Amino acid sequence: MGRIAIDELRRISGLKCIRYTVPGIKDLPVAAKKLFDDGCEIVITLGWVGKTQKDLVSYLAMSIGLITVQLLTGKHVIDVTVHEDEAENEKELLAIAENRVREHVRNAVDLLLNPKRLQKLAGTGQRQGQPDVGPIMR
Amino acid sequence: MGRIAIDELRRISGLKCIRYTVPGIKDLPVAAKKLFDDGCEIVITLGWVGKTQKDLVSYLAMSIGLITVQLLTGKHVIDVTVHEDEAENEKELLAIAENRVREHVRNAVDLLLNPKRLQKLAGTGQRQGQPDVGPIMR
Amino acid sequence: MGRIAIDELRRISGLKCIRYTVPGIKDLPVAAKKLFDDGCEIVITLGWVGKTQKDLVSYLAMSIGLITVQLLTGKHVIDVTVHEDEAENEKELLAIAENRVREHVRNAVDLLLNPKRLQKLAGTGQRQGQPDVGPIMR
Amino acid sequence: MGRIAIDELRRISGLKCIRYTVPGIKDLPVAAKKLFDDGCEIVITLGWVGKTQKDLVSYLAMSIGLITVQLLTGKHVIDVTVHEDEAENEKELLAIAENRVREHVRNAVDLLLNPKRLQKLAGTGQRQGQPDVGPIMR
Amino acid sequence: MGRIAIDELRRISGLKCIRYTVPGIKDLPVAAKKLFDDGCEIVITLGWVGKTQKDLVSYLAMSIGLITVQLLTGKHVIDVTVHEDEAENEKELLAIAENRVREHVRNAVDLLLNPKRLQKLAGTGQRQGQPDVGPIMR
Repeated sequence: MGRIAIDELRRISGLKCIRYTVPGIKDLPVAAKKLFDDGCEIVITLGWVGKTQKDLVSYLAMSIGLITVQLLTGKHVIDVTVHEDEAENEKELLAIAENRVREHVRNAVDLLLNPKRLQKLAGTGQRQGQPDVGPIMR
Repeated sequence: MGRIAIDELRRISGLKCIRYTVPGIKDLPVAAKKLFDDGCEIVITLGWVGKTQKDLVSYLAMSIGLITVQLLTGKHVIDVTVHEDEAENEKELLAIAENRVREHVRNAVDLLLNPKRLQKLAGTGQRQGQPDVGPIMR
Repeated sequence: MGRIAIDELRRISGLKCIRYTVPGIKDLPVAAKKLFDDGCEIVITLGWVGKTQKDLVSYLAMSIGLITVQLLTGKHVIDVTVHEDEAENEKELLAIAENRVREHVRNAVDLLLNPKRLQKLAGTGQRQGQPDVGPIMR
Repeated sequence: MGRIAIDELRRISGLKCIRYTVPGIKDLPVAAKKLFDDGCEIVITLGWVGKTQKDLVSYLAMSIGLITVQLLTGKHVIDVTVHEDEAENEKELLAIAENRVREHVRNAVDLLLNPKRLQKLAGTGQRQGQPDVGPIMR
Repeated sequence: MGRIAIDELRRISGLKCIRYTVPGIKDLPVAAKKLFDDGCEIVITLGWVGKTQKDLVSYLAMSIGLITVQLLTGKHVIDVTVHEDEAENEKELLAIAENRVREHVRNAVDLLLNPKRLQKLAGTGQRQGQPDVGPIMR
């Protein structure tokens, strides 16, 4: 997922990035904190989460931690998590992962450089990693 | 939902507002923090949450984060969340969303300008987004 | 519930109180914080919680927030929550609510003025809002 | 449970203690904080938790709060919780409670005065309140 | 588990370590904090978790606490948790535990001394304590 994120970042912007790999998703919050301390403006976290209750609990702890990091630094962390139970087979799961990574990299770039684009997309049913569902019609 | 909130705010008050759009609900706490840092007196967050356990976990992380923001700033965040499993169909869900947004905008305005009105409504079974259930009779 | 709490407080003590009404239970932590900042010695929160998983999640976020407020201020928050699934019908639920409010107001007053009384009651099966179950016999 | 803890503490050490009784388990974190502020070196919390989902949620909030207190003070809180669903009948539950209280009081004393003893016990299957299961053999 | 960790650490590095034993997993966050205060550069926590909902809740509180410690100190805590329901029998569980401890000790050493190795392993399906699943092919 890291390779895809860097590829997308290079494709759509001239922004520089630092890559920091950790053993598991619960190690992401402190890694994000260290990257901000090193001068990063935004962090994109990439995580792969299993199917068990224990995995969901770890995902919760990670999410609370990432929000804490954001409140401490006043900067955004865009969390890209792929849950193994989101698809029936590996091929579909990979497609979701790649799609989600690329869309969230674009979101992160927009938050930094072009926040008005996100406003236009809000409420139009964008689903990162899945076909967009479209807005609800009336 | 953002459009409805702004419409209601203009209808009932002369308060100014800033709109800040983020990719997902877990991005709301830091956005609220930044708005307070920019001088806002109250923040209304608008979120749309899916039906899965993972969505509920994200909602929990967001809720803890929003409470932390409030404790850090001493200011209220009125959280308007619509859960996709609250209604049978899209039309009903949209009605709930619009109703809830408008009522919570009124609550936010009351908290700032007219806190006594909330006191009169407490315990009378107000349900934002659903028909009010009325007070419990004895 | 607010009216009952004030009634009980006046009945058993000469303590003064400030009433602060908020739209929902997740708004209670910051309200408690503001009351402490305004000079209150103890806060009693009154909340009514629905039956869904989402309500339980909101109750968790509120509980964590109220504990955080207590740690920040070094003062007690006595949380009186009534869960809608605690009784079969509305009459029973109202009786639980009134009983729980009155007993917790007494607990709050004891914490401030008479902490030894709580020590005598500990382990005797006091259940706020339900008939006391009595101590476990050996 | 408080009486048993004090009895055990006197039996195995000359340490002094302060007893602080609160209405419910969610009141324990701030009570522990106040005891540390008053000069205590370690706190043992004693709680009795019901069987419902709501009780488990309260136990979680309490646990997060107690860990926060420890991080704020740099001191240990030994949490002794008895869950009502741990035994079939009251007699068994009482035996678990007494056993757990006594073992955790010993743990607390060891943490203060004799940390090497805990190291020797680690991995030998000690279960506070239940018969020890013994180490796993190979 | 402590003995295995120290054995692996000595086998692959000349790093020194301090061992700190606590009664239960919820005691780990403050212990980690104290080790960092004493000058440690990284902490490896070793925990054994039961099968009940209560155990999962304790695991969640511990996880949130360990992430908080990392954010307070800016240093990594590598959490090695073995859940009793991960294997059918004790022999298998022990094999998982030993394997997971050794792999996480290597991860901790890499984070300190050789962060590039982790980057090469990311996305290749490493599973600490279980046979690696290999990368997902396309």
